Amino acid sequence: MISDKMKELTKNGSAIRAMFEDGKKMIAKLGKENVFDFSLGNPSIVPPESVKQAIIDILNEEEPMLVHGYMNNSGYEDVRKATADYINSQHGTAFTEENIVMTVGAASALNIALKATINPGDEVLLIAPYFGEYNNYINNYDGVPVVVSPDYERFSINFDEFEAKVSPKTKMVIINTPNNPTGAVYSESDLTRLADILNKKQAEYGTEIYLISDEPYREICFGGKKVPYLTKFYKNTFVAYSYSKSLSLPGERIGYLVINNEMSDFEEMAGALNVANRILGYVNAPSLMQRVAGRCVGQTADLSVYEENKDILYKALTEYGYEIVEPQGTFYMFPKCFTPDDKEFCTRAKEYGLVIVPGSNFACPGYFRIAFCVKKETLLNSLPAFKKLADSYR
Amino acid sequence: MISDKMKELTKNGSAIRAMFEDGKKMIAKLGKENVFDFSLGNPSIVPPESVKQAIIDILNEEEPMLVHGYMNNSGYEDVRKATADYINSQHGTAFTEENIVMTVGAASALNIALKATINPGDEVLLIAPYFGEYNNYINNYDGVPVVVSPDYERFSINFDEFEAKVSPKTKMVIINTPNNPTGAVYSESDLTRLADILNKKQAEYGTEIYLISDEPYREICFGGKKVPYLTKFYKNTFVAYSYSKSLSLPGERIGYLVINNEMSDFEEMAGALNVANRILGYVNAPSLMQRVAGRCVGQTADLSVYEENKDILYKALTEYGYEIVEPQGTFYMFPKCFTPDDKEFCTRAKEYGLVIVPGSNFACPGYFRIAFCVKKETLLNSLPAFKKLADSYR
Repeated sequence: MISDKMKELTKNGSAIRAMFEDGKKMIAKLGKENVFDFSLGNPSIVPPESVKQAIIDILNEEEPMLVHGYMNNSGYEDVRKATADYINSQHGTAFTEENIVMTVGAASALNIALKATINPGDEVLLIAPYFGEYNNYINNYDGVPVVVSPDYERFSINFDEFEAKVSPKTKMVIINTPNNPTGAVYSESDLTRLADILNKKQAEYGTEIYLISDEPYREICFGGKKVPYLTKFYKNTFVAYSYSKSLSLPGERIGYLVINNEMSDFEEMAGALNVANRILGYVNAPSLMQRVAGRCVGQTADLSVYEENKDILYKALTEYGYEIVEPQGTFYMFPKCFTPDDKEFCTRAKEYGLVIVPGSNFACPGYFRIAFCVKKETLLNSLPAFKKLADSYR
Repeated sequence: MISDKMKELTKNGSAIRAMFEDGKKMIAKLGKENVFDFSLGNPSIVPPESVKQAIIDILNEEEPMLVHGYMNNSGYEDVRKATADYINSQHGTAFTEENIVMTVGAASALNIALKATINPGDEVLLIAPYFGEYNNYINNYDGVPVVVSPDYERFSINFDEFEAKVSPKTKMVIINTPNNPTGAVYSESDLTRLADILNKKQAEYGTEIYLISDEPYREICFGGKKVPYLTKFYKNTFVAYSYSKSLSLPGERIGYLVINNEMSDFEEMAGALNVANRILGYVNAPSLMQRVAGRCVGQTADLSVYEENKDILYKALTEYGYEIVEPQGTFYMFPKCFTPDDKEFCTRAKEYGLVIVPGSNFACPGYFRIAFCVKKETLLNSLPAFKKLADSYR
């Protein structure tokens, strides 16, 4: 007898398995070369050669008891210091190792921040469209997700509704920039407006409202732009970071959480996060990969392919009549369906060999997500199918 | 403002920091060579050379996208199969990859099993003395720990009290063999008796009661003995395993959970554990270390030092008048204090340069834990201090 909470969640697991089965049927029907899977946000590029070299150097140069051993639950101090130094060099912040907790990817960074702050019944604001997994993370701590409906113009934040939904029970706001599934990057003026609302509401209610920025796509930002650093806009800010996309190491589960030092209860919070990392069963971020992150901080895989893919896809799809807010980053695009029923649209897409995800999965019906982290050739081959899908609605 | 649950837990964190501060003071007073820290269960031996070789071979032979990429949340199928094959070869079981979930160490194996099974208010039986972290893991899912008091004779299970405490709300029993902090290994007859009680109670209440055996110390078993494999005794069994001690890789967070295939709701449970691994933010066990575990399954570091240390320490301490149930495994010993007040005893021990942990931390006051995972030389040098501590109570 599995737990009640898990019964519902395991059903979704079955839906994913059903999708895999569907994929097999599509291949049997259309041929492997005519099936294009854009459903998963799985990096399509190799890690930089420097990662392999770093691993070998670490094994040859450092003591095995250090490389594979226990350390402070928040991570190796030298790795946390190297991380802080790099962020400071990029964003003019003034962090030390005390501001960094090395984590089992961004997923665990989000979980320890929620564990450290959320009491059962506390509200967590989510900006639609958003990564559905946030609901599960909030549910782990009996928090209550409160969804702000989409700003369809720019996929920024629907600020009026956002302000109206900040309540005395609001304990956290999760944002994700660059955004999955839209590719939107919040501008400085967006973030200033967000911070103003939160500061006003904190004063009004006498509460602390934490902002956490989930940033696994920080380095995948197009046109040479930079993603503004959140701690500079709002004091009660956490940043959750992962090397999954920047170094193309998604399986290694290595990332970190930044705790802004202007947070009013900084020391207590740092202590709570250290304990949360331990008692949630992470214990610490994987040790060898921490040391790799320390040596490779600031490096990236060759991310240029994602911008090339975005350009190809955006140009072609707008030509075919798709309505799209042009992504400014990530490897996702979030066009409008040609029908309000996004599930029907994605089912019809399968007839043309396209595996895409309904916007409903991101709390934004009527849209669909394309994860274009695929080979350029695959993308080019898929374009006629997108055209046929569009034409089928004329 | 940190969450209410974390406030209490962060206080304990402060206690640990205080202990570190105490340690510094002791060194300043007694000199570094006269301070012996037996407080932490941190392996004192290097990983086998084969681990380094496996990492280098994997980097040279396998595709980087496979080595560092996402896989099924339950882990690589080939690694899970190699794991199952090894367990089968050792214990005559009939597991396949379906029985194995690769996890972020044994801590995450315990957490996903609890997440998958526990409803708020469900009771989880713990056999004192036990690893205090279990309380936190149970608390993560709002389960209720129910503690069975120690069997002081053998540090096995106090069966009469155990049977009396199995209630209609009992959902899980956690055992740990070889045991932290006592070094006890449950015998086949212990496990048969345990299974008989659980089967009887399941039938009486019409419930499912899960047993999870936490086994990071499985290979540290003295006198050439083998630790019986739990799935052969009781159908509703999980085994949580870690490579932290066997391969001396505690920082890498690599282990697995075994789901017995005789579990009545096996498929639903396997699905729930796969989802739990994802939504608790582990996502998957670190990928490179999974592949290392696949290549190094069945290998160990040179664990013989732990038995040598046990022999030295047991012989000396019994000579000095300590009352001890001789450990059969692990790198822990759990002698009786010379006073019922174990905290007072451990405070006095510091005067002699000994850092040891009160039995109260393991729900067993009047005893203390020595983690003898230290260099043999350190252990030999510490013996006069243990003698002086004993003599101080005459």
